[in-house]
Amino acid sequence: MTIKDIAKRLLDNDNFLIITHVRPDGDTIGSGSALCHALRKIGKTAYLYNNRDFADAFPWITDKYIAPEGYSYDYIVGVDMASEAQYPKGFDEKVNLCIDHHMSNTSYAEETLVWPNKASCGEIILEVVKELCELDADIADLLYVAVSTDTGCFVYGNTTAETLRAAAELCDAGASNTYLNKLLFRTSSKERMLLEAEIVKNMRYYHDGRTIIAIVTNEMKENIGVLEKDMKDIAALPGRIEGGNTSAVIKEVDATHCKISVRTNGIVNANEVCANFGGGGHKMAGGCLMNKNCFEAAELLAAAIAENEAKYL
Amino acid sequence: MTIKDIAKRLLDNDNFLIITHVRPDGDTIGSGSALCHALRKIGKTAYLYNNRDFADAFPWITDKYIAPEGYSYDYIVGVDMASEAQYPKGFDEKVNLCIDHHMSNTSYAEETLVWPNKASCGEIILEVVKELCELDADIADLLYVAVSTDTGCFVYGNTTAETLRAAAELCDAGASNTYLNKLLFRTSSKERMLLEAEIVKNMRYYHDGRTIIAIVTNEMKENIGVLEKDMKDIAALPGRIEGGNTSAVIKEVDATHCKISVRTNGIVNANEVCANFGGGGHKMAGGCLMNKNCFEAAELLAAAIAENEAKYL
Repeated sequence: MTIKDIAKRLLDNDNFLIITHVRPDGDTIGSGSALCHALRKIGKTAYLYNNRDFADAFPWITDKYIAPEGYSYDYIVGVDMASEAQYPKGFDEKVNLCIDHHMSNTSYAEETLVWPNKASCGEIILEVVKELCELDADIADLLYVAVSTDTGCFVYGNTTAETLRAAAELCDAGASNTYLNKLLFRTSSKERMLLEAEIVKNMRYYHDGRTIIAIVTNEMKENIGVLEKDMKDIAALPGRIEGGNTSAVIKEVDATHCKISVRTNGIVNANEVCANFGGGGHKMAGGCLMNKNCFEAAELLAAAIAENEAKYL
Repeated sequence: MTIKDIAKRLLDNDNFLIITHVRPDGDTIGSGSALCHALRKIGKTAYLYNNRDFADAFPWITDKYIAPEGYSYDYIVGVDMASEAQYPKGFDEKVNLCIDHHMSNTSYAEETLVWPNKASCGEIILEVVKELCELDADIADLLYVAVSTDTGCFVYGNTTAETLRAAAELCDAGASNTYLNKLLFRTSSKERMLLEAEIVKNMRYYHDGRTIIAIVTNEMKENIGVLEKDMKDIAALPGRIEGGNTSAVIKEVDATHCKISVRTNGIVNANEVCANFGGGGHKMAGGCLMNKNCFEAAELLAAAIAENEAKYL
């Protein structure tokens, strides 16, 4: 499918329900809301499916787009959603049209456009929206949220010249980049800051500092009063420390269960490390569960990382 | 002056000495090095003045451009340097040509080009370089350092659509943005992380959390083993906390002296607050010294902030 095909489907249909993925991030929310806004602007009826996780994400964005109870729709569009496993809670229908940037898209929808070279789905929606109507500051703000959050404000390795040009186009169209950057990237709750402090002070260093493991216990979270929203992207924290090749965050579930995220710079294979414990992932990011307390888990994980490192170093 | 005038001066002269400002940052270093590289590429002799602070900044960038002892030059170019007060240590000559983006530029050079609407001097040097030669990956890397560091990787309020387009052009020309972003924005020393943790745990909240004051004592720094390079931009840390309008970092000099940076969101006037203690600055950022221990200073500063806030809130 081309962008023009997408535009034709949108122009030929009405009463849209737009689906964002489970545990929604800025890209799916910004993309879905921008598409919703653009469809309304050209006289269509459009709403977002009431993703139950919106409240934990960016409620100030989605509020005015959420479908009321009993909304009757004729055409379903999924955005930034790679597979049916990514469906939001409570949703279980055939999607008519999927617009996505995940290489792993399973073509679960009737029709699909995937551009895997795009850093964010927002960059594709930008092209779609321009076929429908003039960009305005509202749409530009929503797509700026999409593009900037999926690239960590243009810092992650997925950022390309095209991403930066899309962002420039959004700023020209009136996106409040200064305001949004402050809100999205330069504001942390007091609880998040205290949690990071606690994690850093308890960081475990292995293999001359090449492996760094952080443990987040329930006690830490309770003492500080940490909420789920304060935990966002915490897996990236130990990877910031100079000299590390492999980092992990172990989150305590209870005394005998924990949840593990592994990040590497590509020397150690995170997928292989996590496969030792029944998990998986990619070369540079993986995850697994362990039926262990988190301190035992740290030792087992460090040993598995050392073994994998020995294979490649 | 226009960019074409600048190019003419550079083409008409040779044996260049390029001056970067005192306490050099990524913008002056990236801009100066890129200009040096481009001049060499068109067959000129060009070196950077041996700024004694290079070692604390980005020595891996400047190494191959630093002028040898006794280098005999005929034409001096200052980059990103607003006034003679910004001259690097040991330099005290008339500058022939100044290329800068500071509104406050004092026109100290024989000839000056100032574009104050540019987020970084690197964006101006990009235009200059394109008049001299083809962009290549070396120049693109150097200018990417300039543009990205002066905008905090496109997050600060000075970032415009033009900044993002300049960065896109540099990526197209081969800038290693992924590698540089990791190095410049996503890597912290263990000591820096521990210092941040210690600061956060000892943060002082005033006026229902609207004022947040961090204290950095010499004892903290010694216990952790913090070096000067670990202190970069530490003044921005308390400003990240949700709910704050005004933040300050008080650095202990000794038992009866401290150095204070104040940042505000524009409600409280940082310049006016700091003027109470013989300092100054702008509306949103100011500084002063106090002949007090840092804990007494925090109370005096909080009182002055409350008084200023009462005037505007």
